[in-house]
Amino acid sequence: MKKILYTLIFLNTLFLAAQKLERVEPPFWWSGMQRNSLQLMLYGDDIAGYTPEMEGIAVSNVRKTENPNYLFVTIDTKGVAGGEYTLRLKKGKRQVAEYTYEFREREEGSALRKGFDSSDVMYLIMPDRFANGNPDNDSAPGLAEKADRSKQGGRHGGDIQGIIDHIDYIHELGATTIWSTPLLEDNDPEYSYHTYAQSDVYRIDPRYGTNEDYRRLVDALHEKGMKLVMDYVTNHWGAEHWMIRDLPTYDWIHQFPGYANSNYRMETQYDPNASEIDRRYCVDGWFTSTMPDLNQSNPLVLDYLVQNAIWWIEYAGLDGFRVDTYSYNDKEAIAQWTRAITDEYPYFNIVGEVWLHDQAQIAYWQKDSKIGALQDFNSYLPAVMDFTLHDALGTVFDEDEATWDQGMVKVYGNFVNDFLYPDTDNLLVFAENHDTHRFNHIYDGDASKYKMAMAILATVRGIPQLYYGSEIGMAGNKDKGDGDIRRDFPGGWEGDEQNAFTEAGRTERQKTYFDYTSKVFRWRKDTPVIHKGRTKHYLPENNVYVYFRYDDTATVMVVVNNSAESREIDGKRFAESTGGFTSGKEVVSGKTMALDTIAIPAKTAWILELE
Amino acid sequence: MKKILYTLIFLNTLFLAAQKLERVEPPFWWSGMQRNSLQLMLYGDDIAGYTPEMEGIAVSNVRKTENPNYLFVTIDTKGVAGGEYTLRLKKGKRQVAEYTYEFREREEGSALRKGFDSSDVMYLIMPDRFANGNPDNDSAPGLAEKADRSKQGGRHGGDIQGIIDHIDYIHELGATTIWSTPLLEDNDPEYSYHTYAQSDVYRIDPRYGTNEDYRRLVDALHEKGMKLVMDYVTNHWGAEHWMIRDLPTYDWIHQFPGYANSNYRMETQYDPNASEIDRRYCVDGWFTSTMPDLNQSNPLVLDYLVQNAIWWIEYAGLDGFRVDTYSYNDKEAIAQWTRAITDEYPYFNIVGEVWLHDQAQIAYWQKDSKIGALQDFNSYLPAVMDFTLHDALGTVFDEDEATWDQGMVKVYGNFVNDFLYPDTDNLLVFAENHDTHRFNHIYDGDASKYKMAMAILATVRGIPQLYYGSEIGMAGNKDKGDGDIRRDFPGGWEGDEQNAFTEAGRTERQKTYFDYTSKVFRWRKDTPVIHKGRTKHYLPENNVYVYFRYDDTATVMVVVNNSAESREIDGKRFAESTGGFTSGKEVVSGKTMALDTIAIPAKTAWILELE
Repeated sequence: MKKILYTLIFLNTLFLAAQKLERVEPPFWWSGMQRNSLQLMLYGDDIAGYTPEMEGIAVSNVRKTENPNYLFVTIDTKGVAGGEYTLRLKKGKRQVAEYTYEFREREEGSALRKGFDSSDVMYLIMPDRFANGNPDNDSAPGLAEKADRSKQGGRHGGDIQGIIDHIDYIHELGATTIWSTPLLEDNDPEYSYHTYAQSDVYRIDPRYGTNEDYRRLVDALHEKGMKLVMDYVTNHWGAEHWMIRDLPTYDWIHQFPGYANSNYRMETQYDPNASEIDRRYCVDGWFTSTMPDLNQSNPLVLDYLVQNAIWWIEYAGLDGFRVDTYSYNDKEAIAQWTRAITDEYPYFNIVGEVWLHDQAQIAYWQKDSKIGALQDFNSYLPAVMDFTLHDALGTVFDEDEATWDQGMVKVYGNFVNDFLYPDTDNLLVFAENHDTHRFNHIYDGDASKYKMAMAILATVRGIPQLYYGSEIGMAGNKDKGDGDIRRDFPGGWEGDEQNAFTEAGRTERQKTYFDYTSKVFRWRKDTPVIHKGRTKHYLPENNVYVYFRYDDTATVMVVVNNSAESREIDGKRFAESTGGFTSGKEVVSGKTMALDTIAIPAKTAWILELE
Repeated sequence: MKKILYTLIFLNTLFLAAQKLERVEPPFWWSGMQRNSLQLMLYGDDIAGYTPEMEGIAVSNVRKTENPNYLFVTIDTKGVAGGEYTLRLKKGKRQVAEYTYEFREREEGSALRKGFDSSDVMYLIMPDRFANGNPDNDSAPGLAEKADRSKQGGRHGGDIQGIIDHIDYIHELGATTIWSTPLLEDNDPEYSYHTYAQSDVYRIDPRYGTNEDYRRLVDALHEKGMKLVMDYVTNHWGAEHWMIRDLPTYDWIHQFPGYANSNYRMETQYDPNASEIDRRYCVDGWFTSTMPDLNQSNPLVLDYLVQNAIWWIEYAGLDGFRVDTYSYNDKEAIAQWTRAITDEYPYFNIVGEVWLHDQAQIAYWQKDSKIGALQDFNSYLPAVMDFTLHDALGTVFDEDEATWDQGMVKVYGNFVNDFLYPDTDNLLVFAENHDTHRFNHIYDGDASKYKMAMAILATVRGIPQLYYGSEIGMAGNKDKGDGDIRRDFPGGWEGDEQNAFTEAGRTERQKTYFDYTSKVFRWRKDTPVIHKGRTKHYLPENNVYVYFRYDDTATVMVVVNNSAESREIDGKRFAESTGGFTSGKEVVSGKTMALDTIAIPAKTAWILELE
């Protein structure tokens, strides 16, 4: 009674009442959703003794936990009309708190939104390191870590406005979709810039902007026909998350006697010989000591995460999720989460991080996998990551001499097992990301190797993913710390010595990288045969890999000479793919060449549109 | 008319006739078989113009080919009684040739014979290099290559009698089953000792002995409760095969314009992106220029191979096949071959050589594979080879330092994908064979590494396969030629400096190897929990791998310390496997030790029977 009232962000209205109701989550919802119920989480000092009621909406379940500060109230939302509904907390007949709960109208077409797909090219951004569009929000009141660009692991000030300011740049590059690493509040005292240790999952971190800024980003992308993918974290929250600091239930997170780190052996999720203790340490152990591991097997947690994910899709107008550490989650629970989202949005896309080195194991995690079905498992996850291609691309270009298992046969070999995947068009293909060495570090800035990799990513099945900055030749060595692979994009900060976002600002070397990348991915954007065409490939000979993408209307031939010498290719071998064509127009140079004999220089990839 | 008569081996009777009937194959058959028909291949100069008849048995089909020297005559064998039946060739009413075709009575239980299984230990012998039991047959009249023990790739004179003479040795070692590399006639002018280029598949090569000797070998093994596995070659014959020299049909073998070698890329058999030309070169290309590639898709060829295989099972009383280069055969045709045999003998076992380095790909080839089923393929092949375990064992013991992917986690990782296999008990597990480096070469004769490998092979799921001679420490470097990995067993030849077949004849070093091998495999023979028990394994820590084999009656704990230091293992971690036990008796030393803390020396494996 003595406490002052709060007006919390997102809470539209909070009426004077006798009891503090600090949080209601989700803070609002929508009418016309597929789901027929909603689990409201009410939070306030000692509120568990009160009875919730909602005017005009049936309360179907009230769940108290061992923590009296929480009430989980399930309401029946079937057919609920848009508008405001009063939620009341009562003690007998006495009302002690009141909250106006809003059901908004959905955007037209929301349910049937089409997620990113193989016609897209994804550009991965670490927002703190990309561009600082609003220097006023580099630090924020109430949040521990302040900006300090001199620290490799500190906050550098990049933000949502910085992304919005450079949409044209990304568009010019040929990317169609942005995957930004997380933007939700992360109040860790240090290393919060990566933002995977979130402290409030209904709030954009003020150092990146506001929830409204996030919507503006999506709107600006949609205006250019582009898409946004949110990096969603189901596996863990940060130790500073307000609910972690006042746990609703003991089993909201996984707890051991003492601290238990994950053993990171995701194989225990399907290994029939695995010991229970190894499986438990993998799934229930914490990713790091600052990231308490969420227990998605607790239905309260699962509902909370499902609703939060749907809330962001609906609120911000998202085009997809990338789900962090997907295969560290309890597999049955994360499958339920994924299914709930795709039940609500059947054409939405979600790509999970399944960082494995075996195609059967990666395929296990894709929706409707026959490999998963060996254990009656269906993840419902539409898209997975082609980490084995990443592995091959990370070594192959140094292999000038082809052997039985070295050289381009490694890349060829990656596609041999395509039959294990239920949907190869929904594989993310990439040479690097924010957790790996940068490609240009591995290959010591050799642009010819970069170009071969880009030519491959631009033409194989799947959804190419680029990593900000590599398109201007940026390097980064993971062994020097994650910060080294997440350096600031030159030109993203006022006062930067150069601005590589503009053509005039680029060095000659940067132009070499950018121009090639932009050329092949802009071409890809308008080349449907790459998006959905079939693949036919030929066993590499002399370290030269030749493959075709084809459909009824077009055929593209790709020749990658990874040897250190120029090679002459006899076109006759490819007759089953080149039948009816006599020449090919090379996409980058624009030159037309005959197909009978193809003389290709060392360490070169050509993309030929057959004519 | 002018020609003289032949009496051919196997042909029981050949009557005087007007026309030479040089071959009838199979030369005889059995009554009471599951198959209802038999395809007789008749061979003789210009015989295609005659009409075949068989007294008391219906001829259901007569097939002529473009070669007038052949007739393929299908007879209806349903319900045929044992006895002799006269086969006649006629021109109009005139009989020109006659052959007495015998239907023998089957051995009791023949159809339901039980093949080798996971209770067995297989001992692989290269017979030319094992023991020369009959020096009189080292060379043979009519066969080109003569014995010359001074040549690495020459014939050294080992034979069937040499194997028979040393069954006790093999039995003492703990092996229960012999896989001998091929013994059928191979008339290649050189390198015929490996005998994979066969010239007559109904005849044991006289330099190994006679068909009767082969039966004696089986009988002698059966008397000791042991088994014989024949190394069967479906993929190719030798260039000197009499049918290759007078092809029944152009497409009896795969022919190209000019010579075409296989590209050996078996992946093309299931790669959905493979080009037709690559697939064709894999499957139809020749293994080497002296081994014409059989076209099993030709029904005449397929029937010939099926019947030949069944003939050997029935004639010699075989317990299994090992099929050479299984995955180079046309996959649909070889599946038909395999199915035909297992239809006739439902409990017979066949293990195929599927030399691949990816578990999904190996699993593809096992009977009832769900991986194969992705392409509606079923090989019907009961057993496959665990080549990925072989790969791991070939490098792991030099990895003293454990990392994310080095050290015992490699071996652990091999079993993670066990769920991909329809039947892990039917995996051949091995550290080496006649086509690889010898284990003791790889590890430079380090007995401690050999012992770790043997402890693993003796205790993991599957059927262990040993390779002759390694049990006395023999080495061999494949890079020096195949002959180097197929050296003569010391003591197999009269006049050999030493005789390692006897305890007295072994050096101290040889005793170290033999005694350990014999100890663990003889123990395995009487330990059913290893044959059929379940596996539970634990993520290696500090390069120590711990796993359990268990069933309702027994538990065996295996501890492999691959680090270069002694390790103390806290037993508490294994509580879910050790519950109810307090100590373990180590199989080799016989010592009993407590389970709470296990201190194991460097580079050591212990096998503990829990008590």
